Amino acid sequence: MTRDFSDTRALFDLPEGVIYLDGNSLGPLPKAAAARVARTVTEEWGQMLITGWNKAGWMEQPSKTGDRIGRLIGAEPGHVVMGDTLSIKVYQALASALEMNPTRRVILSDSGNFPSDLYMAEGLCRTLGPDYSLKTVAPEQVLEALDDTVAVMMITEVDYRTGRRHDMAALTARAHEVGALAVWDLAHSAGALPVEVAKGGADFAVGCTYKYLNSGPGGPAFIYVAPRHAETARPALSGWLGHEAPFAFDLDYRPGHGIERMRVGTPPVLQLAALDASLDIWDKVEMANIREASLALTDRFIAGVEAACPGLELATPRDHAMRGSQVSFRHPEGYAIMQALIARGVIGDFRAPDILRFGFTPLFINGEDVDKAIAIIKDVMDGALWDRPEYKTRARVT
Amino acid sequence: MTRDFSDTRALFDLPEGVIYLDGNSLGPLPKAAAARVARTVTEEWGQMLITGWNKAGWMEQPSKTGDRIGRLIGAEPGHVVMGDTLSIKVYQALASALEMNPTRRVILSDSGNFPSDLYMAEGLCRTLGPDYSLKTVAPEQVLEALDDTVAVMMITEVDYRTGRRHDMAALTARAHEVGALAVWDLAHSAGALPVEVAKGGADFAVGCTYKYLNSGPGGPAFIYVAPRHAETARPALSGWLGHEAPFAFDLDYRPGHGIERMRVGTPPVLQLAALDASLDIWDKVEMANIREASLALTDRFIAGVEAACPGLELATPRDHAMRGSQVSFRHPEGYAIMQALIARGVIGDFRAPDILRFGFTPLFINGEDVDKAIAIIKDVMDGALWDRPEYKTRARVT
Repeated sequence: MTRDFSDTRALFDLPEGVIYLDGNSLGPLPKAAAARVARTVTEEWGQMLITGWNKAGWMEQPSKTGDRIGRLIGAEPGHVVMGDTLSIKVYQALASALEMNPTRRVILSDSGNFPSDLYMAEGLCRTLGPDYSLKTVAPEQVLEALDDTVAVMMITEVDYRTGRRHDMAALTARAHEVGALAVWDLAHSAGALPVEVAKGGADFAVGCTYKYLNSGPGGPAFIYVAPRHAETARPALSGWLGHEAPFAFDLDYRPGHGIERMRVGTPPVLQLAALDASLDIWDKVEMANIREASLALTDRFIAGVEAACPGLELATPRDHAMRGSQVSFRHPEGYAIMQALIARGVIGDFRAPDILRFGFTPLFINGEDVDKAIAIIKDVMDGALWDRPEYKTRARVT
Repeated sequence: MTRDFSDTRALFDLPEGVIYLDGNSLGPLPKAAAARVARTVTEEWGQMLITGWNKAGWMEQPSKTGDRIGRLIGAEPGHVVMGDTLSIKVYQALASALEMNPTRRVILSDSGNFPSDLYMAEGLCRTLGPDYSLKTVAPEQVLEALDDTVAVMMITEVDYRTGRRHDMAALTARAHEVGALAVWDLAHSAGALPVEVAKGGADFAVGCTYKYLNSGPGGPAFIYVAPRHAETARPALSGWLGHEAPFAFDLDYRPGHGIERMRVGTPPVLQLAALDASLDIWDKVEMANIREASLALTDRFIAGVEAACPGLELATPRDHAMRGSQVSFRHPEGYAIMQALIARGVIGDFRAPDILRFGFTPLFINGEDVDKAIAIIKDVMDGALWDRPEYKTRARVT
């Protein structure tokens, strides 16, 4: 296990002249992933053809890779599986959790949750019927909003805009006290900080892999089901690969054992290959060391930007316990400022209405990068370099 | 447009000594796909990083590629989008269709449908409530089973076991007469034969791309929504990329325009790259010519095997109008026979309980392959070469 992340930095393909502070949105390319994907395409798909499902282990990949993710999120072995997108995994977790709490009809979430989680919950409620509803409160009000009407609490641990972190153990304990189940979205925590789904008592957890886990654009999501629910959770999206015997081709569905039932369709073999190569890097590190380095980087960035740029308002908690692995600042011209920064090689992103977001990923970002980024941000702010028409025209995606 | 498929055969990477009659399960590697995926990994992901969503066109890829599939299935431009797996797309189509027919509660399907479609329908019915049910009849009985209780008819055009083809236009017309909607699964028709979803009147159609369309293991699925429903179909799986303005990050869901609302989460960019390269081959051919060649190959295979192997019982219709692009034979020792064939380089597959399945794909299979395959099948059957223990031990996947 390494604590010297200069070793791991060398394992990524980072473009020249770029300080990439957006690994919290799309992680960079692990050098080994290119070769791994090429091998999966030419040697496995190309040469093994259909026999790759057995010979290359494609069919088992979702559970094998799931266990590698499991180590990073504090899951018991055998209780995480890969597949689909995070939105689909949210739907699965919510649908199962609601059915396990059949006398209640309310999903509780917060306005800092990623909108897709809220949208999927809305869609599920509408399918379930008019008695079901999604209740959304401010992030600070979740604890007090937990009462005996709540069937399921659905929370994203780290707020995608502000980087504010919820207390998983405390909220889950309170949810259980009032008889609710807890579904945790780890999109901005898996690979960002030590997560403890088992110790924290999560009933379900879901997350994506293309952010901190560097699996590439469109990499698969994961789902965790607590062992106590593994054989009782009903899969609402009951696809054939979650069947007890997919290749018996029975006409009736019988859920597979444990986490296998949360599989749906054919796994995305090429995307899984990229993820698997990326996880080889994660095998070399401990999350505790990543966290220590991450907090040092975010502290340094906050102090530097606040000293250099009084016009930027910190949106991220100063309290370490309440912070993820990103730092956000607010500014009314946030969009244009970010475009100006990107033009100068500092890549972060903008989130409406006014958030400048910077992700810190110790595997490939170090203190020197932070200092360089601060200097460039200072230049842009001091000279109002963002105040040009070309930076203010919004593209469809940022 | 070519009718000489020796041109297209050269575009695939086919292992030496193999006659690949399983392109109906997993298509082989188009040579250009390897380079395309490598470029997407190293030049797009590696160098563009997050900006690839705009610069490399990743965000638009699902609709652009959808239109390329649309041409092959007779869809109107702008009404097909890629994403997820086929099982998820089945769920979306069914959920939307059921909501559009709110006074009825029955999904009608047939026992020749792929089990995952039935499983997804079961799961959806259970989520919707006890009034909803899936009714499954024999393939020959679908027409007469259509009555005014049926909300949605869900049929796979070509039976995955027998290759029996339903009459899309006739069944859809009858469904509409009785006030039902029609959801068609094109898993074994897209790229196999000319499909006419628009002319045939389909309300929804879904399909996968890793079979005849050669997108590689885990390639994305597609969904078609008829233009008359495009602005009214509610997406039950209401993910952020189906939102009218995904990057506004509103807290409430508003469906996107037309087919865009059937998107859910982040598209699988690497798998889409492979698909896109494969579709370059499809741009060179007309489905009518593919069909002519396919029928010649399947006729030749049926005649040859029946003459050489009286122990094998044909399971595929002789009538061209009722045949897909595969030929299946029944034999009680089907599993062992297929293992013996694979050991001799004839790759088909086995489907429980007794089906030997051979797919015919004119892009890379020709008459000479058919004759060679027949000779090997004859050897295996004449000498009972399958009657060895190693061929009878069942692996998990075949």
